[in-house]
Amino acid sequence: MPKDVKGKKYVYFFGGKKAEGKAEMKNLLGGKGANLAEMVNLSLPVPAGLTITTECCTAYYENKCQLPKSLYDEVWAGMKRMEAEMGMKYGDPKNPLLLSCRSGARKSMPGMMDTVLNVGLCTATIPGLIKKTNNPRFVWDSYRRLIMMYADVVMDKAEGLEKNIRKKLDDMLDEFKKAKKVKQDTDLTAEDLKLLAGEFKKKVKKELGTAFPDDAKEQLFGSIMAVFKSWNGKKAVSYRRIEGIPDDWGTAVNVQAMVFGNMGDSSATGVAFTRNPATGDNLFYGEWLINAQGEDVVAGIRTPNPLNDDTKNEQNQHLHSMQEQMPGTYKELSKIRAILEKNYKDMLDIEFTIQEGKLYMLQCRAGKRTGTAALNMAMDMLKEKLIDERTAVMRVEPAQLDELLHPICDPAEEKKVDVLVKGLPAGPGAAVGQIVFTAEDAVAWQRKGKKVILLREETNPEDVEGMRAAVGILTARGGMTSHAALVARGWGKCCIVGAGKLHVTAHTKTAKIEGSNIVLKEGDFVTLNGTKGHVYKGELKLMDASENPRFKQFMKMVDTFRNMGVRTNADTPADAKIARDFGAEGIGLFRTEHMFYGKNAEKPLFLLRKMIASNTEAERRKALKELFPFMKADMKGTLEAMDGYPVTIRTLDPPLHEFIPLNKEGRMKIAESLKITMKEFDKRAEALHETNPMMGHRGVRLGITFPEITEAQVRAIFEATAELLKEKKHPFPEIMIPVTSTVNEIDHQYKIIDTIHKEVCEKFGLKQIPHMIGTMIEIPRACLTADQIAKSAQFFSFGTNDLTQMSFGFSRDDIGGFLPDYLDKKILPVDPFQVIDFEGVGQLMALAVQKGRSTKKDLKIGICGEHGGEPNSVEFCHSLGFTYVSCSPYRVPIARLAAAQAAIKQNQAKTGKAKKVATKK
Amino acid sequence: MPKDVKGKKYVYFFGGKKAEGKAEMKNLLGGKGANLAEMVNLSLPVPAGLTITTECCTAYYENKCQLPKSLYDEVWAGMKRMEAEMGMKYGDPKNPLLLSCRSGARKSMPGMMDTVLNVGLCTATIPGLIKKTNNPRFVWDSYRRLIMMYADVVMDKAEGLEKNIRKKLDDMLDEFKKAKKVKQDTDLTAEDLKLLAGEFKKKVKKELGTAFPDDAKEQLFGSIMAVFKSWNGKKAVSYRRIEGIPDDWGTAVNVQAMVFGNMGDSSATGVAFTRNPATGDNLFYGEWLINAQGEDVVAGIRTPNPLNDDTKNEQNQHLHSMQEQMPGTYKELSKIRAILEKNYKDMLDIEFTIQEGKLYMLQCRAGKRTGTAALNMAMDMLKEKLIDERTAVMRVEPAQLDELLHPICDPAEEKKVDVLVKGLPAGPGAAVGQIVFTAEDAVAWQRKGKKVILLREETNPEDVEGMRAAVGILTARGGMTSHAALVARGWGKCCIVGAGKLHVTAHTKTAKIEGSNIVLKEGDFVTLNGTKGHVYKGELKLMDASENPRFKQFMKMVDTFRNMGVRTNADTPADAKIARDFGAEGIGLFRTEHMFYGKNAEKPLFLLRKMIASNTEAERRKALKELFPFMKADMKGTLEAMDGYPVTIRTLDPPLHEFIPLNKEGRMKIAESLKITMKEFDKRAEALHETNPMMGHRGVRLGITFPEITEAQVRAIFEATAELLKEKKHPFPEIMIPVTSTVNEIDHQYKIIDTIHKEVCEKFGLKQIPHMIGTMIEIPRACLTADQIAKSAQFFSFGTNDLTQMSFGFSRDDIGGFLPDYLDKKILPVDPFQVIDFEGVGQLMALAVQKGRSTKKDLKIGICGEHGGEPNSVEFCHSLGFTYVSCSPYRVPIARLAAAQAAIKQNQAKTGKAKKVATKK
Repeated sequence: MPKDVKGKKYVYFFGGKKAEGKAEMKNLLGGKGANLAEMVNLSLPVPAGLTITTECCTAYYENKCQLPKSLYDEVWAGMKRMEAEMGMKYGDPKNPLLLSCRSGARKSMPGMMDTVLNVGLCTATIPGLIKKTNNPRFVWDSYRRLIMMYADVVMDKAEGLEKNIRKKLDDMLDEFKKAKKVKQDTDLTAEDLKLLAGEFKKKVKKELGTAFPDDAKEQLFGSIMAVFKSWNGKKAVSYRRIEGIPDDWGTAVNVQAMVFGNMGDSSATGVAFTRNPATGDNLFYGEWLINAQGEDVVAGIRTPNPLNDDTKNEQNQHLHSMQEQMPGTYKELSKIRAILEKNYKDMLDIEFTIQEGKLYMLQCRAGKRTGTAALNMAMDMLKEKLIDERTAVMRVEPAQLDELLHPICDPAEEKKVDVLVKGLPAGPGAAVGQIVFTAEDAVAWQRKGKKVILLREETNPEDVEGMRAAVGILTARGGMTSHAALVARGWGKCCIVGAGKLHVTAHTKTAKIEGSNIVLKEGDFVTLNGTKGHVYKGELKLMDASENPRFKQFMKMVDTFRNMGVRTNADTPADAKIARDFGAEGIGLFRTEHMFYGKNAEKPLFLLRKMIASNTEAERRKALKELFPFMKADMKGTLEAMDGYPVTIRTLDPPLHEFIPLNKEGRMKIAESLKITMKEFDKRAEALHETNPMMGHRGVRLGITFPEITEAQVRAIFEATAELLKEKKHPFPEIMIPVTSTVNEIDHQYKIIDTIHKEVCEKFGLKQIPHMIGTMIEIPRACLTADQIAKSAQFFSFGTNDLTQMSFGFSRDDIGGFLPDYLDKKILPVDPFQVIDFEGVGQLMALAVQKGRSTKKDLKIGICGEHGGEPNSVEFCHSLGFTYVSCSPYRVPIARLAAAQAAIKQNQAKTGKAKKVATKK
Repeated sequence: MPKDVKGKKYVYFFGGKKAEGKAEMKNLLGGKGANLAEMVNLSLPVPAGLTITTECCTAYYENKCQLPKSLYDEVWAGMKRMEAEMGMKYGDPKNPLLLSCRSGARKSMPGMMDTVLNVGLCTATIPGLIKKTNNPRFVWDSYRRLIMMYADVVMDKAEGLEKNIRKKLDDMLDEFKKAKKVKQDTDLTAEDLKLLAGEFKKKVKKELGTAFPDDAKEQLFGSIMAVFKSWNGKKAVSYRRIEGIPDDWGTAVNVQAMVFGNMGDSSATGVAFTRNPATGDNLFYGEWLINAQGEDVVAGIRTPNPLNDDTKNEQNQHLHSMQEQMPGTYKELSKIRAILEKNYKDMLDIEFTIQEGKLYMLQCRAGKRTGTAALNMAMDMLKEKLIDERTAVMRVEPAQLDELLHPICDPAEEKKVDVLVKGLPAGPGAAVGQIVFTAEDAVAWQRKGKKVILLREETNPEDVEGMRAAVGILTARGGMTSHAALVARGWGKCCIVGAGKLHVTAHTKTAKIEGSNIVLKEGDFVTLNGTKGHVYKGELKLMDASENPRFKQFMKMVDTFRNMGVRTNADTPADAKIARDFGAEGIGLFRTEHMFYGKNAEKPLFLLRKMIASNTEAERRKALKELFPFMKADMKGTLEAMDGYPVTIRTLDPPLHEFIPLNKEGRMKIAESLKITMKEFDKRAEALHETNPMMGHRGVRLGITFPEITEAQVRAIFEATAELLKEKKHPFPEIMIPVTSTVNEIDHQYKIIDTIHKEVCEKFGLKQIPHMIGTMIEIPRACLTADQIAKSAQFFSFGTNDLTQMSFGFSRDDIGGFLPDYLDKKILPVDPFQVIDFEGVGQLMALAVQKGRSTKKDLKIGICGEHGGEPNSVEFCHSLGFTYVSCSPYRVPIARLAAAQAAIKQNQAKTGKAKKVATKK
């Protein structure tokens, strides 16, 4: 259905000192468009232009890929204002205006969508522009660039021809240079370029079947549509999948007057950050190139010059900075930097062009930053009183903390070895892995469980998934604002770019180190120090990020906003200790079965197996008695390590057959100890086999059919606690019953626990042993009957792994067969085992909370599934009113920050609402 | 907590012409108590008595097995009225009143709880009673009976001693008779019995440690408590489990003045049905014994006499009837029969005693009946205008229809063979099975999948589970009102009792046929014709119940009350045909995978396996192409058989590895046809293996990863339909997508279906092919997001098997490990795979219906899980507003009746409510 809504405004003008849009209108104008408008409103020098809204993109797709009819008039009306502002006319033979057409979504998707530059150059306008600029070489160069881009973006890709015209034209250019015996594009003359443009047009016609359009109007709307189409290009879709950007947001298109950084040596182009995006240092930081267009800096084709002294490093210190070469313009740019930071109260990523000495701002947006930088800038800006504490807390993404806690190279080890090659420190931390040379290999090797370093000449948007799969990225070319650097920084991934001494031969999958005999091959181990930009041969030892006082200060501030507890999932005193150091306020999940795994578990595992292979209650009790001291010691250790905090201890959960040894020797040993034949043992083991063990005889079902197991475990808990009490400690066990589906299960176990409690109290001469009895909520039926379960359970702890399995009917062990297809085909927006499925599983959780609290108003509610450390899921738990979340030790700070941010957001939403109500009054 | 609620009335008096209770008060007084009160109110001769309420039983259990204090005073006050009414005094030395203490729950639980008779006989009262009755033998016989019962029920069982005192006293009696050289109890003299009573008392003291109480008061309250305790006896609990009676209902206790059928030849006792309970014939039907107590008739110790001519049969025609022997009393009883039927408007089961010529009514209740009798009586009473159509429909339990549809012996076959032995036709239909001699064996053999006939001298309540497990029951002793007959009739199970020529030797597990050399041994096959009472050797051919015009008439009437559709689950034209004949209005589940099972599936199964073992889409498409004609033919056959009705066709559901052959030969054949090595084949097969296949790659997940499978199946459906349309038929396929968890899955499949629909329309030159597209609702998440799913699905069909699995996290294949324990320990009241778990799974269903209909008001909603043929579940589906239920062909009439009854009940509830509202006004 055409959604050509009458009177709908699709075009927003910006230029002069006033724009129709502003920074707050990102959803409608996209980030780029909203910020161009904002800069105009701040009186910064911005070439005039039009933003075609994201709503127009949506309308375009709903309208079977046709532009709304009203758009044409709106564009031409806007063009009139642009022409007036710029003093040029689009398509005019004498004084022609050229345009750029760029995408701009709500959220930055760097390099994922298409751009066409120099739009408006055609037979009719070329002579006038030559005359006006008196620079035929510039004009013909711009023309051949337009043909290349337009043929690629508008005529080939947007039409789905997949003729790879870009590559073919690139090859023609290379051959032409070879024939002319020149190396650089800049070595070609105006005549050369004119000739080449002619050849290009012939090639385009031949390859694509249609001629490159010689009409400015056709070029304009072709470009607009091509940008819209690129929203659904393969790269963009894949990027959105990773970033979780909804498909229906759409992109805006910015049609803007061209300014040229390639009009000679008084022209230039550059990219800068208002502060250092890797470290957060409050220093202007950027790169520029004289006589170049923007893409030359970003694409990493030429190693760019440093913007200023602060940007100089080992690789680029010999190159001239803008500060040195164009001090006046640099000063102007510095002023703009200050204006922008004051306005946005954030670190910004800006793009600028200098056309024959005049500075133009082409883009500004919040700059991507490493976790370290995010933290440092937040704390700095707080100190500078640019932002308040609340904003500072919101400035660090929880996932970025991961990076702060990630390993770094052990400096002692680093000293012992030689640096293999150096590059720019584009992504912090350290990474050790095996080299691969293509994105596909990175994905394939990673799937096999290998850690890989993706080594590329330079990366491009096609490499995104491979970059994701790699633990570290290393490129031979490109600067700190190159594609690889931007993407890696966004993910907090270790990355080194522009290691110029690396000579990569992609087809042989080798890389030679200049000035040495060393050749790196696929599969070779290397270590990256992304903070320094150093590459080492082999596997260097890594170490935990050292204690960062700023991090501690930040987390302290974070906790003042948080009102949800954060616990950890830990099964050993060692894990409990780490988690306590990271700020865990107790254990949310202690798996009693853990004591049967790992190196030191030989004896208890043997006894457990003996118990499992027992055939009578008497046999089982005997084995359990032998096992008892191990159980008690295990629980006591962790209760002690968490002294003063609650420890949620889950009774035996996994199906018993999981513990049956597979090897004959192990089986024989148990058979012998039980004095039964191997045949008998095998019979018993076979009887334990299940078709769907996930939904079989496990959890509380074991405790009901074999109450003696619960008895022994609970006795161990109470005796361990009683002993600690006698030692003047403050243990607090919370006994948790797994896999509950009806309150009757809890009541059954409750009686056992109660009896044992009395017995142990008597034994130790205690009136009572402090404890609670609660249950996992991980079965849909438990959610549905939570009101009844809450009558007997003193706390709930959501097991969202199993709850997700049961709610979807997805076996986590078996999703490999279809989940990748589900994500590819957009059946599911995201893996529900990564992020809670709010829509389905979340509904059950909300129901359980509501029902549980309808019975017990102050019911303690937590989560101990893996979602407990995932920021979006933590926020969801907060919105449901959880008492705490529990996650693995290393994710505790992430959960703390996510919980604090959730509280702030909720508060803001409330305040916002309150304000609106106030306004109404 | 003692729930001794102040002022709570625990005792209800009945006697004379007025009772405090009435028939409607069953919940409070139990069935027996309420009906005794009703009979008193109808001015029938009933010995006076007290009913102690079921609330008192509940209070007793809540009060740690102590009687409420207020009860004692209430009982004594009631006793005063009883004494006045009966003209005797309890415990009085001269004119002592004796009492019976009997249980009486809301729902009859025949023989499951305990009774004590002759309560009040003691040293103090014996002489007076002898003097009064002038019958010392009667008094001493009553006394030894009291000792036996009291010692057993009150002193041994109720105290949980498990000393088996009853058996020991029985043995003493036998030995005593042997010593006296007499056969019958009645041959013992008064002196003998007095002596025996003394020996009994010594034995009781010795075995149980306490003396038999010689105090009338102690005897009374001991007996009351023992009855309450028997509510939780093993037999009663097991019976409740089978019958689905809640544990918290409790039993009432009826304390009633004793009357004696054993006071000589003018005394008698009997049991009767107001109509024939086996056939439904409107003839008074009963059995009686002169000079006996009630238990003698019911226990099957003596073969009872026929009540009248109408009750005479081959076995008892030589015995005198009451009609002949006591014509006056028989006439009085016949009048009572008429009064009762007029009052209750139903067939009644009555117990009476004649004490020295005077008739007393001891019990009346709705009589158990066979399905045939239920049907016939309903239709008769309708004709007699005793009941209306609505009541007639309610009179047949849906489960009883099963019996009407059960097989009978093929008369042609029957003619060819000799009758092995004859008995009473206690349960209709026919059964073929192997003989077992104990209830335990019956259970054990049945678990192994064998069909067994339980052959017993006589059955007792301990045998209930074995009777359940058997396909037929055969006893050597007992009449039509014996335990075996009552229980079998209740279940509609084939049963023959009183086959007197069978001489059973339990310990050798053999039975000799009197007058022949034939000895039946364990495992021998026999055939029972329960309608005739004939037993045959070997396995006779059975046949379907012939077309019963009354059944058809009844079902026609049923359908006028029904407003929910009934479909069938059928995969073959043959099944479709049977179901149509049973009244199915379409197919609710056609499993496309069915064509790969069974004898004729060799070729399609081979092709399917080939498809599964294919590694590329091209290979799969090739195999599917070969498979296509089979698929089309399969669908066409069933669509044709159901012509004019909708056929819900489910796309491929099971995980693919289910089809991989296990044997080497089969694997080699496929490998060869695919031209791959066995190693490669095994690799591919291994890759299909899943840890939890129930939650793995199945259902729509297959259709998404292998769209070509959906394509082929849908093409087969549309082509089959198109061909039938061309043949002027009226096919209507409803394409059903299984295992859906998100609407996106349906949308994905929808596109495929749409495309194929267009292609097939074009091929056949049709504008469109009528069809619908819908989904199974069997995953919890589908219920939770049903509002969205309903946007794309045109119908819902609940798969409650899988929904129950996912909601509970119970794998149906693996519940054997814990479900029996769950039922034993009352964790679950009933197997949720038998009856829908209304509380949990039902909530999800209600949510899905509400959400689905919020999107599409008239959304077609059905059920195709096995619950669709279970009456309680059908009623639940009705309450949720389902459009239809679907079940196996043979259960279609059951579902129709259950649906009609649900509609009537709902209507009655509404009317009731409306009345109440009216009253309020």
